[in-house]
Amino acid sequence: MKLKKPTLLIDKEKCLHNIRKMKAKADKSGVRFRPHFKTHQSAEVGEWIRNEGISAITVSSISMALYFAQNGWDDITVAFPVNVAEIDEINELAMQISLNLLVENDEAVNYLASNLKSEVGIYIKIDAGYHRTGMLVSDHQGIHNLLNSIRQHELLHFKGLLVHNGHTYKAGSHKEVIAIHEQSIEALMRLKTFLIGNDIDLEISIGDTPSMSLVENFDGIDEIRPGNFVLYDFMQAALGSCKTENIAVALACPIVAKHAQRMEIVIYGGAIHLSKDFILDDIGKPIYGRVVQLQNNSWSKAIGGAYVKSLSQEHGVIKVNAAFFDKISVGDFIGILPIHSCLTVNLMNEYYTLDGKLVTTIGP
Amino acid sequence: MKLKKPTLLIDKEKCLHNIRKMKAKADKSGVRFRPHFKTHQSAEVGEWIRNEGISAITVSSISMALYFAQNGWDDITVAFPVNVAEIDEINELAMQISLNLLVENDEAVNYLASNLKSEVGIYIKIDAGYHRTGMLVSDHQGIHNLLNSIRQHELLHFKGLLVHNGHTYKAGSHKEVIAIHEQSIEALMRLKTFLIGNDIDLEISIGDTPSMSLVENFDGIDEIRPGNFVLYDFMQAALGSCKTENIAVALACPIVAKHAQRMEIVIYGGAIHLSKDFILDDIGKPIYGRVVQLQNNSWSKAIGGAYVKSLSQEHGVIKVNAAFFDKISVGDFIGILPIHSCLTVNLMNEYYTLDGKLVTTIGP
Repeated sequence: MKLKKPTLLIDKEKCLHNIRKMKAKADKSGVRFRPHFKTHQSAEVGEWIRNEGISAITVSSISMALYFAQNGWDDITVAFPVNVAEIDEINELAMQISLNLLVENDEAVNYLASNLKSEVGIYIKIDAGYHRTGMLVSDHQGIHNLLNSIRQHELLHFKGLLVHNGHTYKAGSHKEVIAIHEQSIEALMRLKTFLIGNDIDLEISIGDTPSMSLVENFDGIDEIRPGNFVLYDFMQAALGSCKTENIAVALACPIVAKHAQRMEIVIYGGAIHLSKDFILDDIGKPIYGRVVQLQNNSWSKAIGGAYVKSLSQEHGVIKVNAAFFDKISVGDFIGILPIHSCLTVNLMNEYYTLDGKLVTTIGP
Repeated sequence: MKLKKPTLLIDKEKCLHNIRKMKAKADKSGVRFRPHFKTHQSAEVGEWIRNEGISAITVSSISMALYFAQNGWDDITVAFPVNVAEIDEINELAMQISLNLLVENDEAVNYLASNLKSEVGIYIKIDAGYHRTGMLVSDHQGIHNLLNSIRQHELLHFKGLLVHNGHTYKAGSHKEVIAIHEQSIEALMRLKTFLIGNDIDLEISIGDTPSMSLVENFDGIDEIRPGNFVLYDFMQAALGSCKTENIAVALACPIVAKHAQRMEIVIYGGAIHLSKDFILDDIGKPIYGRVVQLQNNSWSKAIGGAYVKSLSQEHGVIKVNAAFFDKISVGDFIGILPIHSCLTVNLMNEYYTLDGKLVTTIGP
């Protein structure tokens, strides 16, 4: 493959390894594995996942649900508070597939009750500490009341409680990730005990890549929904959810300038390719990506001391050490391990496998 | 127009006002106005600009140059260090239009000299303090040497020095923006004096929206290349380059949840719509967007105390005050003024005018 401009490479073997590892863990614990497809956004990567024996998926928008339904998926949870303005598309989907929606307020329940044309599965979105969306896990009575509203409507089939512990991304250690997970499960179990007193069966659905990667014990859980693990990224590696070698995507970028005085190189590859997401290193310095060398059908380990220091629209500025600086020339391509692969994939809209095959995504 | 999901609105009147104001300023100073098209990325917005009497443009990639060349622009500067891997596309363009490229090292000059098939205009990229790309403005001898290399090659037609003072974005005040601009012009004048001693004519091309918006005196400059001014955004408003009322784009987003305990609302509208760019407010808190109410064919002023506090892939969390909280409901649409309109446009790939007409862009 002749590289011309920023190109997202996907290492299928790494990807399959990540999928198989998470699948084995789910199987061992006897939980349903419903991977989130918002990271890879690709029908073809979806097929790699289907080939591992997976049949239920999660997405983050109605648009994504429509795309994957067209690509043969018939059991989809839209893990996002229902957007009532898309009721026509919801009805279209609910006629064709087994569709699960999330609610967290009476407005959405009432709107669905009045406007749905087919049955949908309903999860109540629970906030177990992340404080982005959901009803507080401690609000037993409020959740009980919402559940009662749901049960009044024939087309709303209550399925369970769904939580996303996004605060694991702020954890400082493995231990802290596991502690967040365990606290959340304890609180969910108290809530479940309260609710099933009211003669109801319910599932617990959970899923964030850090805890699903680090926790071994899935007791109390019925379903896991990690997404990022398929590709991983440098944020996950920094958290310890994966090793840097497990990251299955790298952005190939041409070097356009070298600045010896600052030990910096400039690549064609910027915020419109990688996204502006960053992590802070030990001394609080932002890192927008790590650097690898591209090899025949693979890439190297991350190069020590080399990192993306800043991004503008199309430029990336990379700090390197003298040894690496001397090895590379204007016109060479290097690889960048993204900080947040979901956003990089969303910007790039396509990948190339290491043997040069195009892999498309949902696109814009 | 029936809004269903995050939709980028463009206010054509505001846009035309911004274009006319900058054009008048350029005309008054007698400088060539070569607006940067990387912000709007749209053939149609390009026509609005052409209708104001503008015929030369700037872009940031060869892909963008190809798109605008196909849309009738025949005088294009690619304001990015030349990516030699795209030599075929460069040759294609150089045959059709008047194409200007940027160089800052011998590698690029030599590669072009050996591989070009038609004449191109060449600017040397100068670093006047931003320290992203370019030869240091103080490196008179180095620049002189590069210029001599350029002049040895028939198809490389040297045109001048090109600078982008991106460090104006870090300025704390109008005064500081103007000071950065003036220092850079002084240094460029010293460089020019040194170079024209060698019997050469050259242009000075400059352009960043903060200084082009705030500076009144364009003495010493031959060409200005601002881009963001066409749409502006909240980063520019915070810098003082424009008023909030001049921002010509807003992202319409549905409200999907309200959380009274935290005085927060959640919108469908996240990092894949707005980008993760942010500014810091007076107390160092990140702001990912400001909030307006959508009205018939317009939007309100920014709502006091309301701002986008955080973004994940598809969610935005907005802090509001109690008065606004009570006024809005789940299912309503509100508008978000982006922090960085270039990145928002790049993610959204299309706009709608306030009377509901689709405006396309280059796309992914």
